[in-house]
Amino acid sequence: MFKVDLNSDLGESFGTYVLGHDGDVMASITSANVACGFHAGDPEVMVKTVKSAMEKGVAIGAHPGYPDLLGFGRRNMSCSPDEVYSYCLYQIGALSAVCRAHRVSLQHVKPHGAMYNQAAKDQRLAEAIVSAVKDGGDHLILLGLAGSCFEKAALEAGVLFAAEAFADRAYQEDGSLVPRKQPGAVIHDVHLAADRVIKMVREGTIETINGAEIHLRPHSICLHGDTPGAVSMARAIREALSQAGVTVSCLKEVLE
Amino acid sequence: MFKVDLNSDLGESFGTYVLGHDGDVMASITSANVACGFHAGDPEVMVKTVKSAMEKGVAIGAHPGYPDLLGFGRRNMSCSPDEVYSYCLYQIGALSAVCRAHRVSLQHVKPHGAMYNQAAKDQRLAEAIVSAVKDGGDHLILLGLAGSCFEKAALEAGVLFAAEAFADRAYQEDGSLVPRKQPGAVIHDVHLAADRVIKMVREGTIETINGAEIHLRPHSICLHGDTPGAVSMARAIREALSQAGVTVSCLKEVLE
Amino acid sequence: MFKVDLNSDLGESFGTYVLGHDGDVMASITSANVACGFHAGDPEVMVKTVKSAMEKGVAIGAHPGYPDLLGFGRRNMSCSPDEVYSYCLYQIGALSAVCRAHRVSLQHVKPHGAMYNQAAKDQRLAEAIVSAVKDGGDHLILLGLAGSCFEKAALEAGVLFAAEAFADRAYQEDGSLVPRKQPGAVIHDVHLAADRVIKMVREGTIETINGAEIHLRPHSICLHGDTPGAVSMARAIREALSQAGVTVSCLKEVLE
Amino acid sequence: MFKVDLNSDLGESFGTYVLGHDGDVMASITSANVACGFHAGDPEVMVKTVKSAMEKGVAIGAHPGYPDLLGFGRRNMSCSPDEVYSYCLYQIGALSAVCRAHRVSLQHVKPHGAMYNQAAKDQRLAEAIVSAVKDGGDHLILLGLAGSCFEKAALEAGVLFAAEAFADRAYQEDGSLVPRKQPGAVIHDVHLAADRVIKMVREGTIETINGAEIHLRPHSICLHGDTPGAVSMARAIREALSQAGVTVSCLKEVLE
Repeated sequence: MFKVDLNSDLGESFGTYVLGHDGDVMASITSANVACGFHAGDPEVMVKTVKSAMEKGVAIGAHPGYPDLLGFGRRNMSCSPDEVYSYCLYQIGALSAVCRAHRVSLQHVKPHGAMYNQAAKDQRLAEAIVSAVKDGGDHLILLGLAGSCFEKAALEAGVLFAAEAFADRAYQEDGSLVPRKQPGAVIHDVHLAADRVIKMVREGTIETINGAEIHLRPHSICLHGDTPGAVSMARAIREALSQAGVTVSCLKEVLE
Repeated sequence: MFKVDLNSDLGESFGTYVLGHDGDVMASITSANVACGFHAGDPEVMVKTVKSAMEKGVAIGAHPGYPDLLGFGRRNMSCSPDEVYSYCLYQIGALSAVCRAHRVSLQHVKPHGAMYNQAAKDQRLAEAIVSAVKDGGDHLILLGLAGSCFEKAALEAGVLFAAEAFADRAYQEDGSLVPRKQPGAVIHDVHLAADRVIKMVREGTIETINGAEIHLRPHSICLHGDTPGAVSMARAIREALSQAGVTVSCLKEVLE
Repeated sequence: MFKVDLNSDLGESFGTYVLGHDGDVMASITSANVACGFHAGDPEVMVKTVKSAMEKGVAIGAHPGYPDLLGFGRRNMSCSPDEVYSYCLYQIGALSAVCRAHRVSLQHVKPHGAMYNQAAKDQRLAEAIVSAVKDGGDHLILLGLAGSCFEKAALEAGVLFAAEAFADRAYQEDGSLVPRKQPGAVIHDVHLAADRVIKMVREGTIETINGAEIHLRPHSICLHGDTPGAVSMARAIREALSQAGVTVSCLKEVLE
Repeated sequence: MFKVDLNSDLGESFGTYVLGHDGDVMASITSANVACGFHAGDPEVMVKTVKSAMEKGVAIGAHPGYPDLLGFGRRNMSCSPDEVYSYCLYQIGALSAVCRAHRVSLQHVKPHGAMYNQAAKDQRLAEAIVSAVKDGGDHLILLGLAGSCFEKAALEAGVLFAAEAFADRAYQEDGSLVPRKQPGAVIHDVHLAADRVIKMVREGTIETINGAEIHLRPHSICLHGDTPGAVSMARAIREALSQAGVTVSCLKEVLE
């Protein structure tokens, strides 16, 4: 039986500012990456998001980012591993308390934006994040790019790792994403995206932008929820997976 | 046997900015109120402060404040109870994760500055804080002003409450502090301060600014550590208590 | 000939977060109150907003607020007059430089949210703001509530003052607004709102919530732009004023 | 006649946090780089620093940095040229208003920390900063590293440029600083530092860490004021320059 998790970044509103279509996207996913107040989100938004995820049966993960609200955590910053460790531990703890208040466990941690991208290629940053995941809770799963420094660091530290892939992005032959600026980097065709996801999950392969076939069997597919179009694609992929006989369930169950 | 806890606000440095004489004051106290990044403190400072407290055998508490770094959390803000609840829960969680990483329990929560002062007189804010204390951890103790809304709210919610008194402040007959702007509000004489603390602990009374005697038996005495003079007073009070046969131990042990 | 200015709060987006319908509301107003980065807005948003206002012939004003992005500057804070002075001066200067870069003059200053409400009733805060307006530029106009501390402080300091009224709010007999929580506080009928504005401008009177008629002749009418409905009301009021023969022009021209 | 300016970073306190020995270092320098609230400083500190600089006859410059208070603006950030432009323009404007309030002109702009280091080597960032300097005021001088992208960008845009050198740092043969981590990178001997400064000013040369002699004739020498030792060195260099017949005066006069 084939199983896969569907994850999305949620809880990115801040104060008066509303971002994303959390209510709609929650209907399609099984794991939510909840912003923790550094690059997005705030304590009240976190409380509301956890409450909403629980009601919809969506598992909850921390989505720690750099302390850069103005840049939405998308700008590279030259932080030391100690800084990254403490930023992650702090944010994991903050969300854990919100989970504790609602008697639900924190399932996973997925770093956000520039922190994700930098640590995926920087072993020391990946190790710092893995330490925070280990120190921050019991049996927390680190969700990150397949084949990245995250995977290696998690393996070495005995931390559970889940690999994610992207439904709407083209891949290169080394398994990395085609940069957004290149033509064909983003897949807009919902049916094509759904087919690719099904193939990854069932066959463990994906066709690269050059037509080659590479191995890629993700535990989770990252979906977006920031535009109405993204919400539609999320829904379509969820339905296509069900029709293809793939069980969609949260990370913890996929890893079992 | 008489027992009392000595608490002080620590971990108030931020980034490059150093505040307080944490190393020195840790030698005299039994419970540290650790800033959690809203009004002071940052994730790295929290890690260092928890590590240092553990090494010196000082129990650790969260010291949540308003999101007002520029005003050091000392400015009144018209926050709703929901906002105050989520701010406290978030900060308690963040520090709890740091404690977890060092395999030490969070002992207590003491609100900071304007949040403390406003909630001491506002039952709804006090209840919001008590809810966050209850939701944020197991058997957390709320440390606050004796006879304030904190005490009432904690009692009603079944949350452990510890009353604190101030070594260097004059009292009015209703048990409130003489405002700082009034003459005689602050006691600078170390011996007088020590004598007053001993009397509070042993006899459960204190002489007010007008010469009357009122009942006041605190579980903890709040000491300052922000000036060299404050550090000396902390040391003197600790020694005077020992000489007077008062056991100085952390909040948890005092409450037993 | 009757003249009136129409003002609205703009430039309230922040980083990734988009707020308001600035492009639409700019078509109806003559003066823009531009957020300056404390309660909303950021340096890039300020540059874009000034550019857009210039293109549409809308005069530009600074909209300084409390340093409370999380609360959108709407929460009362106990800041000292010196703090409020320096916060306003700083924000006025920041926007002035953006205006200078686009070779346009800063026309006015209108405090935001809680700063506006607190200073309207607190003479010392109003005086601090007036000092910042005087120190921050040549011939800057302070835009504020008619009959408030703003007006008195500006008069005493020799600062130009413009009184504003609200199109969609009910008034009490002392000229203050009916609090939002009371029934009838907000006027949703576009035609009624337009008629009230025309009467204020032409006759200098307004009917209170109790049916009495009071004197109120504003230099400017505050319109909202945060919802599609608000944008429609702004457009309707602009049109109704034109049809009623009232000249709609920027504050500076109204005050001449 | 030989002339040189002495500059130092000041006004780096924030709220309750005090940093640096501004009062002492002001006695030795001729130009102050005043933090503008992004990486350090706050509106009240800016008002006090400008007031103090005026009283001591020290010329005032803006010291804009990245929006990274937690990292004190010392962490590289991947900001776009548009972001850097608007951050600089905003901060220049904020300080200009404070200067205007005290009827003193802003003399110069010197970027801080990581912004300085990144733009010194990145022509597009340097051009963005130069544009902000040009747009932010009349005849503002850009103060930066000799021979860097700053110099080229300023020249092309017709913005006045002043080159600075460091009294306490060793140089490499290409005119760049020896990285702090290498042995011999920092010069602690006050007399040696003073001699090197005098030689730079009088002869336009400096001996590199490898004993070669390179050309370097700075308009300004950067001094530190963050430690008592730094304050002593500043004083010693000022005195040595006077004794060597070098006129110490502000940037504007040096450039004339």
